[in-house]
Amino acid sequence: MKNHFLLDLSYLFARAVGPGGIAEADLETGAARLAFDAFEARRAKGEIGFVDLPRRRDLSAACREAAAEIRAEATDFLHVGIGGSALGPRALVRALTHPHANLLDAQRRGNPRIFFLENADPETLSGLRDVVDLSRTWIHVVSKSGGTVETLAQWLIVREWLVEAVGEKEARRRTVFTTDPDRGALREVARAEGIRALDIPPNVGGRYSALTPVGLLPLAVAGIDPDSVLNGAQDVMQMCTSPKIDENPALQLACALHALDVHHGKHIHVLMAYADALADTAEWFRQLWAESLGKRYDREGREVFCGPTPVKAVGAIDQHSQLQLYLEGPPDKVILLLGTRARKHALAIPRDTAGRGEMAYLGGHGLGELLDVEQRATEEALARSARPCASLELDAVTPESLGALYQLLELATGYAGELYGVNAFDQPAVEVGKRIAYHALGRPGYASESSPPPPRDARRRFPR
Amino acid sequence: MKNHFLLDLSYLFARAVGPGGIAEADLETGAARLAFDAFEARRAKGEIGFVDLPRRRDLSAACREAAAEIRAEATDFLHVGIGGSALGPRALVRALTHPHANLLDAQRRGNPRIFFLENADPETLSGLRDVVDLSRTWIHVVSKSGGTVETLAQWLIVREWLVEAVGEKEARRRTVFTTDPDRGALREVARAEGIRALDIPPNVGGRYSALTPVGLLPLAVAGIDPDSVLNGAQDVMQMCTSPKIDENPALQLACALHALDVHHGKHIHVLMAYADALADTAEWFRQLWAESLGKRYDREGREVFCGPTPVKAVGAIDQHSQLQLYLEGPPDKVILLLGTRARKHALAIPRDTAGRGEMAYLGGHGLGELLDVEQRATEEALARSARPCASLELDAVTPESLGALYQLLELATGYAGELYGVNAFDQPAVEVGKRIAYHALGRPGYASESSPPPPRDARRRFPR
Repeated sequence: MKNHFLLDLSYLFARAVGPGGIAEADLETGAARLAFDAFEARRAKGEIGFVDLPRRRDLSAACREAAAEIRAEATDFLHVGIGGSALGPRALVRALTHPHANLLDAQRRGNPRIFFLENADPETLSGLRDVVDLSRTWIHVVSKSGGTVETLAQWLIVREWLVEAVGEKEARRRTVFTTDPDRGALREVARAEGIRALDIPPNVGGRYSALTPVGLLPLAVAGIDPDSVLNGAQDVMQMCTSPKIDENPALQLACALHALDVHHGKHIHVLMAYADALADTAEWFRQLWAESLGKRYDREGREVFCGPTPVKAVGAIDQHSQLQLYLEGPPDKVILLLGTRARKHALAIPRDTAGRGEMAYLGGHGLGELLDVEQRATEEALARSARPCASLELDAVTPESLGALYQLLELATGYAGELYGVNAFDQPAVEVGKRIAYHALGRPGYASESSPPPPRDARRRFPR
Repeated sequence: MKNHFLLDLSYLFARAVGPGGIAEADLETGAARLAFDAFEARRAKGEIGFVDLPRRRDLSAACREAAAEIRAEATDFLHVGIGGSALGPRALVRALTHPHANLLDAQRRGNPRIFFLENADPETLSGLRDVVDLSRTWIHVVSKSGGTVETLAQWLIVREWLVEAVGEKEARRRTVFTTDPDRGALREVARAEGIRALDIPPNVGGRYSALTPVGLLPLAVAGIDPDSVLNGAQDVMQMCTSPKIDENPALQLACALHALDVHHGKHIHVLMAYADALADTAEWFRQLWAESLGKRYDREGREVFCGPTPVKAVGAIDQHSQLQLYLEGPPDKVILLLGTRARKHALAIPRDTAGRGEMAYLGGHGLGELLDVEQRATEEALARSARPCASLELDAVTPESLGALYQLLELATGYAGELYGVNAFDQPAVEVGKRIAYHALGRPGYASESSPPPPRDARRRFPR
């Protein structure tokens, strides 16, 4: 079993950062064991599917098989999905492929360009048509429920384009769905039309689905072995088997962040990635943490309005944007710095041209070294300013370490749900807005809300 | 004078959303007039430069001239900058160009591909070398201070590449600096080596510099007339001349957000863009709001630790990620929805292929209509859940409306600084981290901090 990362929570504690940090006693309440046991009990009942994904090699094999066919034929691969059907796949592909993959792959065979169609934005989708080669395009349509409106709408449009370009039968052959095996519109269509469909296990929700075909198929299309990602995730499952916080990194992380929120007023949880490759991973985590923990009712039905607000940040970029606020603003934040201990390129800063006043000291250092130094300096500046922070450093940005990272953070989210006392696996609130939108679109069965919307006020409008 | 946008603050008020909203009395305290007068007094002293930018047609003319030369020769344009030197230019270029401009422009002449080099990330910069044509590349190096380490480091590396590709003299000719006219390393180098340098007026800070050559040169290189952006900004200056909140949209917006933060616990200010083209603008605003208002001391030197936390969101994407938290989590947020009243493409959802159960209602609607409906549904769902929200809708995404939007939000930030009683034009805290980093890089004159960094704890590390 490999570790894949170094997690250091030292600077979350009062011992290091003063009274804004956690007291040791915060973690010795027995809450960790209760949360661990509650999580394990739900898992034993089959309610928590993501923990089993590392062993689902049948799913990775199906992705490898489909990807081989796609890679042999396609120049363009369109991944249609939103929320949990987009954030994980996009983040994994970005982390593990060339930073300008689509520009590069336009010039060479074998690696299809991968496009993520997330938003229902007509400018973005129209623009896509200007650049893809529809005669060599494959499409991957992803929705756990099978009925996500933005995804279906985009698929219906692109499907028409494909049919025009290659005919109906061939368009069907170049389409892959990934959805629940038992229910939903996509599954129905797949059965009726003979479209290939991959599975998201029924007990795996959208935001926990990155390591299903949702994320594994695009990775395989990009030429990355999906099993290597699952291997890293599997290592984390072996690492996190203890109810003792000192032996279970996901549990210690969850307990620390929970205690900082509820006992120390750290309501904002920043994940700050010190590598462009990991920036989208911070966005993936933002959904995981927000949608899992932001709940009105606890599991006993009491009104709690709980949930920390996750924020995505990127170092060193946000040193020039958010760090001023993090260091001097209200002490309501905890910052988790996500880095990597090895970078592929050193990229030395030339010495000979650096001979002028303000630049001379840069010559001979590496660009990656600069970024590492800045990460450590930010961590130290935060700790010296009594702002709790932690660091999570991958051994390197590899398929294995990414699999480990995703599984670690999903486990921490599951434990955190138990610590907050909420269901980390539902999202009841988003139905309200959907009902209003369905009514406006004329979907049968959706009446208007019984009361009128709140009144507007002419004095509050510009121009009048 | 055109309006360029519709701003509706109705749903920020208790009258619409209940006790979580602003009481009318919150805005009738005289604070608005005091803030307006204080802002105008600083402006009269010449401390606030951004208000004069719409009239600086000398700066836009210089950009047009440089851009004409660049467009005639370049296939690739590298914009090197971070923080305020990157966020505005990137957001403006993204809003006003094709959604896949770099893929499209690789195939046609006249429009150089534009790359933003922000982070000091060696993988990203190495990857760039794989895709640009150095024999036809121009570079724009942007730093207000002239000494930004990430920017200088990247420039020194790319400069060496250019010199190898086209020789030293030609590399100099293909370089443009944008920096303070009077100080800093870049200005010195420009003078010594005869490199063309454009000006950021001394009284315009980085995060207020989008409408200087920082943003206007890349826009002009993309083929957009910089004067059209300035015209929109100029219209807003004419719109915001009154100290009465009912007559000054920037002032009413600032007063409302300030009151929500300090009197109603809405410490998190979300800007949610309902158009992919405006997503980066939400990120630009996030710097503006955070760095301007996040301050430890007020202007009388009292310790206040103030500042709302801005959050970037994108609709409909974040309906599937953050809306659950916004609707059911702690009532600590206000959400400003940023939309557009006209989209370029309708993109009808095909009717004939939509004849199945869960999809039939979609046929015949436009994709942009869907996004608009979702925006209104989110606004209504928020208001019904007693979550204050407002909407800001551009007439269309045009150079004029973007100029208006940027000037409006910069004015609101300036007013908000006076309402909070802080200096909205400095960023004192980021120096701590810089000192630590400079020391680690061996920069002369930077000793190590006098006390050691806080201690780490082996029990908080994984693996041990």
